[in-house]
Amino acid sequence: MHPTATDGPSTAAPIAAALTALRERSPLVQCLTNIVVAQRTADVLLAAGAAPAMVDNAAEAGPFAAIADAVLVNLGTPYADTADAMRAAVRGAADAGTPWVLDPVAVGPLRWRTDLALELLAIAPPRIVRGNASEVLALAGGAGGKGVDSVDSPDAALDTARRLADRLGTTVAVSGAVDVVTDGPRVLRVRNGHPLMTRVTGVGCALGALMAAFAAAVDDPIVAATAATALLTVAADASAATAAGPGTFAVGLLDEVAAVSPDRLLAETRLA
Amino acid sequence: MHPTATDGPSTAAPIAAALTALRERSPLVQCLTNIVVAQRTADVLLAAGAAPAMVDNAAEAGPFAAIADAVLVNLGTPYADTADAMRAAVRGAADAGTPWVLDPVAVGPLRWRTDLALELLAIAPPRIVRGNASEVLALAGGAGGKGVDSVDSPDAALDTARRLADRLGTTVAVSGAVDVVTDGPRVLRVRNGHPLMTRVTGVGCALGALMAAFAAAVDDPIVAATAATALLTVAADASAATAAGPGTFAVGLLDEVAAVSPDRLLAETRLA
Amino acid sequence: MHPTATDGPSTAAPIAAALTALRERSPLVQCLTNIVVAQRTADVLLAAGAAPAMVDNAAEAGPFAAIADAVLVNLGTPYADTADAMRAAVRGAADAGTPWVLDPVAVGPLRWRTDLALELLAIAPPRIVRGNASEVLALAGGAGGKGVDSVDSPDAALDTARRLADRLGTTVAVSGAVDVVTDGPRVLRVRNGHPLMTRVTGVGCALGALMAAFAAAVDDPIVAATAATALLTVAADASAATAAGPGTFAVGLLDEVAAVSPDRLLAETRLA
Repeated sequence: MHPTATDGPSTAAPIAAALTALRERSPLVQCLTNIVVAQRTADVLLAAGAAPAMVDNAAEAGPFAAIADAVLVNLGTPYADTADAMRAAVRGAADAGTPWVLDPVAVGPLRWRTDLALELLAIAPPRIVRGNASEVLALAGGAGGKGVDSVDSPDAALDTARRLADRLGTTVAVSGAVDVVTDGPRVLRVRNGHPLMTRVTGVGCALGALMAAFAAAVDDPIVAATAATALLTVAADASAATAAGPGTFAVGLLDEVAAVSPDRLLAETRLA
Repeated sequence: MHPTATDGPSTAAPIAAALTALRERSPLVQCLTNIVVAQRTADVLLAAGAAPAMVDNAAEAGPFAAIADAVLVNLGTPYADTADAMRAAVRGAADAGTPWVLDPVAVGPLRWRTDLALELLAIAPPRIVRGNASEVLALAGGAGGKGVDSVDSPDAALDTARRLADRLGTTVAVSGAVDVVTDGPRVLRVRNGHPLMTRVTGVGCALGALMAAFAAAVDDPIVAATAATALLTVAADASAATAAGPGTFAVGLLDEVAAVSPDRLLAETRLA
Repeated sequence: MHPTATDGPSTAAPIAAALTALRERSPLVQCLTNIVVAQRTADVLLAAGAAPAMVDNAAEAGPFAAIADAVLVNLGTPYADTADAMRAAVRGAADAGTPWVLDPVAVGPLRWRTDLALELLAIAPPRIVRGNASEVLALAGGAGGKGVDSVDSPDAALDTARRLADRLGTTVAVSGAVDVVTDGPRVLRVRNGHPLMTRVTGVGCALGALMAAFAAAVDDPIVAATAATALLTVAADASAATAAGPGTFAVGLLDEVAAVSPDRLLAETRLA
């Protein structure tokens, strides 16, 4: 159904160009995210060259989505009032044509947020969905997925991700040891990255925020999602090379996100 | 009443074994904690080998407590809705037999959270209570303790802690320069640790989270509480040895929590 | 109207004395701040020698403001319930004579928090207002300021800041490449600081918290605001000198805030 001949760009040139565009535009990224990763998310966005704004209350989230260049909705720690803010932000983004990104953290086993995620998808399709394989499978299958923890390979979720992308008209990024990004017809894989990324909280959440920043900087969402993945994983490779453990890794990751140039991204990104 | 002859293990062997068990099981620790320390708590749990999940909304906290291997309730920044989530989580933990740990941050001078702490204790006894001397005294004496700031030695709270442990059928860990852990009959002291631990926010809160992780990994709660204390303080000793200040100390603490092996714990823990 | 001859102290001696006073008193600073910067704010206060307490729920915020030595209200991520807590804290601070500091994050384009800021100012004047030029202009002009992003120089907001200070009987600190502090008649500028301060989230928010700590330690609010600015920017200069990027800069900033002595502050602060 999706011949591999239609796969995405085989070189990192559009990705390097996306980083140049991100740093020229410095997009304002509205983040409705969770209490665990809010600081690290903002730090990664700032290091990359974007401007984070955590406007996540029900009174302001909707109007601000018309001002922002992109909106991130991350379901890590939703509450009744921030869930209202998420609904308002997605409506505001849809009305204003602002791209939004959904990070459906822990959907599947947790019913309330799974329903919330489906409700947000029904308001307006996100430009990009980013999750791990379990989350993407749960989101595609509706609420109540079982055994999602047994799935750990993004490629095991690829067919589901492609169908979800087709159905929603979105791009789906599945994070894992090899990251897979698809808009339905096209599939891209990023082979950079290091296991230390899973020993520090919020790296995946920061990736979703970077995807929102890139979605504001370039038109093609598969390029945006892949560029975000490449930037963070190339930075992670560099930080891991000298880290003594998860603490120094997280610190070096911020240094490297700021230091990685478009040329380095072009040279070091390993696509497939 | 509690002869010293009934004190706990005089060697660190069970503690080292607990760390092995923690890393083999990688327990899922549900954290209902505060906005200040959520990231650091998750980072410490990940570094230690556990899997944090900050599920702290009223809709999901109860059901998730049946899925989680342990639950942490930390009263650092409770709100009306997260207090409801705490009640639900403790009920869910009690129904499912999931061990839960109470960290009664700042109970005593603050009435509302003191009442909340007592209400949680009345739902079901926690496996472990962790606090400083003032908090343990306030929790034992009910609300309205006065002059709690004048108490700074865990041993000054020891008799109260033993009675509290007896009454609730729990283990009480009192943090300080020398940490004291008691289940009533038995008393253990950990002499590791460094003053820099008090110059970085959230170290005590992370200790409570580690106790929850160990409570999921071993059956004896006094071993769980002592192993958590030993892991964090041995790591702190190592980080402080090279730190230039609180910033580098906090970073090195994460590196060391990940690096400390059961053998190192056996060799470096100073019990008494 | 405000002749330069009435400008503030031309040497850093009162600033150095303020740091000595802060470390002797170790003031208890109640922070009602945002989910992004809560950890970094607490870490900076601890490093400086103060004692942070994030008591930000509606039930406890008012009574605690009578216990605290100073109160910080930061509007970074207000919600309905924490806005109630802010109102209660300001009332409690006013009743008890506790100094409070307002950090009006993002007022102007965001209507709800702008109204909230004006409501708090109407309850009781803060000891210090800290913001960037856009925020100070928006706060002085009421809600609905336009084009605030085009203003990036504190000196462009100086006249407005002086009038605001006169009208409220407060001190206004405007952060930027050169920081400007005024109580109306007097104007002080601090020329320390580094662009990396804008590449890490929460540095400005931590500055507001430090101003609250210094306001508890010394009587003259222009000295408090200037001392806080000097401490943080002198520390930033030192950290930036060896930082490899925003990650190591943020870590070193904490080390330096703890390490800067009154003598170093006297020698390295560049006033004008």
